[in-house]
Amino acid sequence: MRIAVLGGDGFVGWPTALHLSALGHEIHIVDNLSRRWIDTELGVQSLTPMDSIQERCRIWHLETGHRLQFHFLDLREYDRLRVWLAEHRPEAIIHFAEQRAAPYSMKSDRHKVYTVSNNVNATHNLLAAMVETGVDAHLVHLGTMGVYGYSTVGAPIPEGYLDVTVDTPTGPRDLQILYPTRPGSIYHMTKSLDQILFQFYAQNDGLRITDLHQGIVWGTHTDQTRRHPQLVNRFDYDGDYGTVLNRFLVQAAIGYPLTVHGTGGQTRAFIHLQDSVRCVELALSDAPRAGERVKIFNQMTETHRVRDLAEMVAKMTGARVAYLPNPRKEADENELMVRNDQFLSLGLKPITLAEGLLAEVVDVAKKFAHRIDRSRVPCVSAWTKDIAQRVEHDPEGRRLRSVS
Amino acid sequence: MRIAVLGGDGFVGWPTALHLSALGHEIHIVDNLSRRWIDTELGVQSLTPMDSIQERCRIWHLETGHRLQFHFLDLREYDRLRVWLAEHRPEAIIHFAEQRAAPYSMKSDRHKVYTVSNNVNATHNLLAAMVETGVDAHLVHLGTMGVYGYSTVGAPIPEGYLDVTVDTPTGPRDLQILYPTRPGSIYHMTKSLDQILFQFYAQNDGLRITDLHQGIVWGTHTDQTRRHPQLVNRFDYDGDYGTVLNRFLVQAAIGYPLTVHGTGGQTRAFIHLQDSVRCVELALSDAPRAGERVKIFNQMTETHRVRDLAEMVAKMTGARVAYLPNPRKEADENELMVRNDQFLSLGLKPITLAEGLLAEVVDVAKKFAHRIDRSRVPCVSAWTKDIAQRVEHDPEGRRLRSVS
Repeated sequence: MRIAVLGGDGFVGWPTALHLSALGHEIHIVDNLSRRWIDTELGVQSLTPMDSIQERCRIWHLETGHRLQFHFLDLREYDRLRVWLAEHRPEAIIHFAEQRAAPYSMKSDRHKVYTVSNNVNATHNLLAAMVETGVDAHLVHLGTMGVYGYSTVGAPIPEGYLDVTVDTPTGPRDLQILYPTRPGSIYHMTKSLDQILFQFYAQNDGLRITDLHQGIVWGTHTDQTRRHPQLVNRFDYDGDYGTVLNRFLVQAAIGYPLTVHGTGGQTRAFIHLQDSVRCVELALSDAPRAGERVKIFNQMTETHRVRDLAEMVAKMTGARVAYLPNPRKEADENELMVRNDQFLSLGLKPITLAEGLLAEVVDVAKKFAHRIDRSRVPCVSAWTKDIAQRVEHDPEGRRLRSVS
Repeated sequence: MRIAVLGGDGFVGWPTALHLSALGHEIHIVDNLSRRWIDTELGVQSLTPMDSIQERCRIWHLETGHRLQFHFLDLREYDRLRVWLAEHRPEAIIHFAEQRAAPYSMKSDRHKVYTVSNNVNATHNLLAAMVETGVDAHLVHLGTMGVYGYSTVGAPIPEGYLDVTVDTPTGPRDLQILYPTRPGSIYHMTKSLDQILFQFYAQNDGLRITDLHQGIVWGTHTDQTRRHPQLVNRFDYDGDYGTVLNRFLVQAAIGYPLTVHGTGGQTRAFIHLQDSVRCVELALSDAPRAGERVKIFNQMTETHRVRDLAEMVAKMTGARVAYLPNPRKEADENELMVRNDQFLSLGLKPITLAEGLLAEVVDVAKKFAHRIDRSRVPCVSAWTKDIAQRVEHDPEGRRLRSVS
């Protein structure tokens, strides 16, 4: 199959491109490399030394004989995108090309504006261009569990659609509706907006769309990234792009306190990177038909409380846990039960935290510990100005922000 | 009160600005005049001869002694918007500054992209700038009944929030959720996106927001636009911007068949322009508190089937009704019951179709009939390419689109 991987230079995009290439698909990576620019802006770098996308593609070819074609393209440029689609006519499109960090999206007004503008315009341009060019590709989009919000209805979160009963003059009526969204950050909100875009284009134009509501990804290697040191995946440890479990493992590796925000009573959904790329493969095999509603999967394998993870990592490594004020505006404690029947029925065999892969992440972190800037470990973004006042210092006593 | 009217040069924006100015408020009209540029693009013009915004403001001052301050500003320019807000610090902001025609939004891929980019970025920039500048204004946004979609749950449409029951492991649970949206065009979809933006900013930042889900506006004069010929309101009769009832009245005035799409069985919600500006006044008087959820009003006064309106106008004027293929993708027939208790309880006394104001519109149309380009009367935009194939000629036999 000819597959376009939009955002194929990113944390999940890159291993997905390799995974699908190894399966024999013709892979076109489309990326504006914005994530590398953001590294430059923030003055951080991937823990793992990451080559240019061109060099990575060259190594993959040497190693496997498969070609990855890289296209430098910004989805915000509608006309270039339309021309590209008309020329390459992919049969499937995997869409990772959005700014994906909640803390980055809350950093300042400029970051909020960038995240909304980039994500909404990119996604909508893609949909409009698919209709205009008549490219009948299966669109698989990386969404987030965060569209549900963390104040759930008190029942396991279904896969995208919620059964409700409404009173009508002729008696109660059962409906299935898009789960009422309650995103907790500007980033998560853009994925909620995407859902409405998808609903419209599936209904009006018969586009075939799958939306993957992904949990927090942990781990760094997949079978394909392990094949050569230069195929290594990006590994973010900083307060903006690092994901919580990976951050605990890095913190443990360098003797930094494990930074738990608030009580750590937040329950989150998790998935290992290897399962994440496998889920994309499974979703591709199960496309909706034209005219069908958007297919929504919960792409996660287990849920945990943040403090339980911290305590588990602390026990495993001897690290200490630091409880810090929460920079996010959210409930201290929440329950989270999630359905993921669809991927299980398609054959997913979840990799759990028990599989020993936690140690692998610690090993990676130790190997590259000399590349870590400790001052970039804490979260600096605060959800509101009031919260910013309360969260002033990192666990090592450094001031988090310059006084404005 | 110091009030910013964003989009204050438009069809409802202008009479709202006059209405609030007449009540003694300090009015700042902010507009990028995009609606006038779109007239130029489409080669159409308001049926009523409309002066420049600067000239209109001058006449208003001569006529009433009140000043309207006009600011040429595009909300897509975030930095200029933020600086403007910080400088003028309005106490209320009425936000009309979005592309507001469904047919225009479906005209081509370029028009879809423009509508999404313009509307979403404008609204989000405004919200981000309000938070950044700490301007604690009551934001009143003009939304649309179209966010509900026309496939309703079989009960009267509540004002924004729907009561539902959900099954949980501990028994049924009652929830009130944002009404599940099902917009029928790109334009309507942008208003659905706005709802999510408002929900987030009300919840995260405590912004005080009112969203007015407005029906189709008819009529052209208000008490204030009647005061001087040069204060006359814009009147759109073309297939993109003209609203259905006003279009019937214009068609009747010039002996053009009344263009009903499909069976005309679509039921729509309506409101007279004078009530629309009064509703904005009432909404301003009833602001939510910080931390409260978004307040949503249904801003409409009656519902009618499109074919009933056509037949009523035909009977009143002797015009003939032409049933044409429907360029929209929608059900042929739908019921629509709508609650509007909140405005009634705030004192709205609805102006109904029975009030004799239909004849006023016909009079306006006859007076300016020489300014009408008959070729611009039919709807040219089709919702999908398939539909475009079926809708090829106008009721007078002209080809609607050039063959591409």
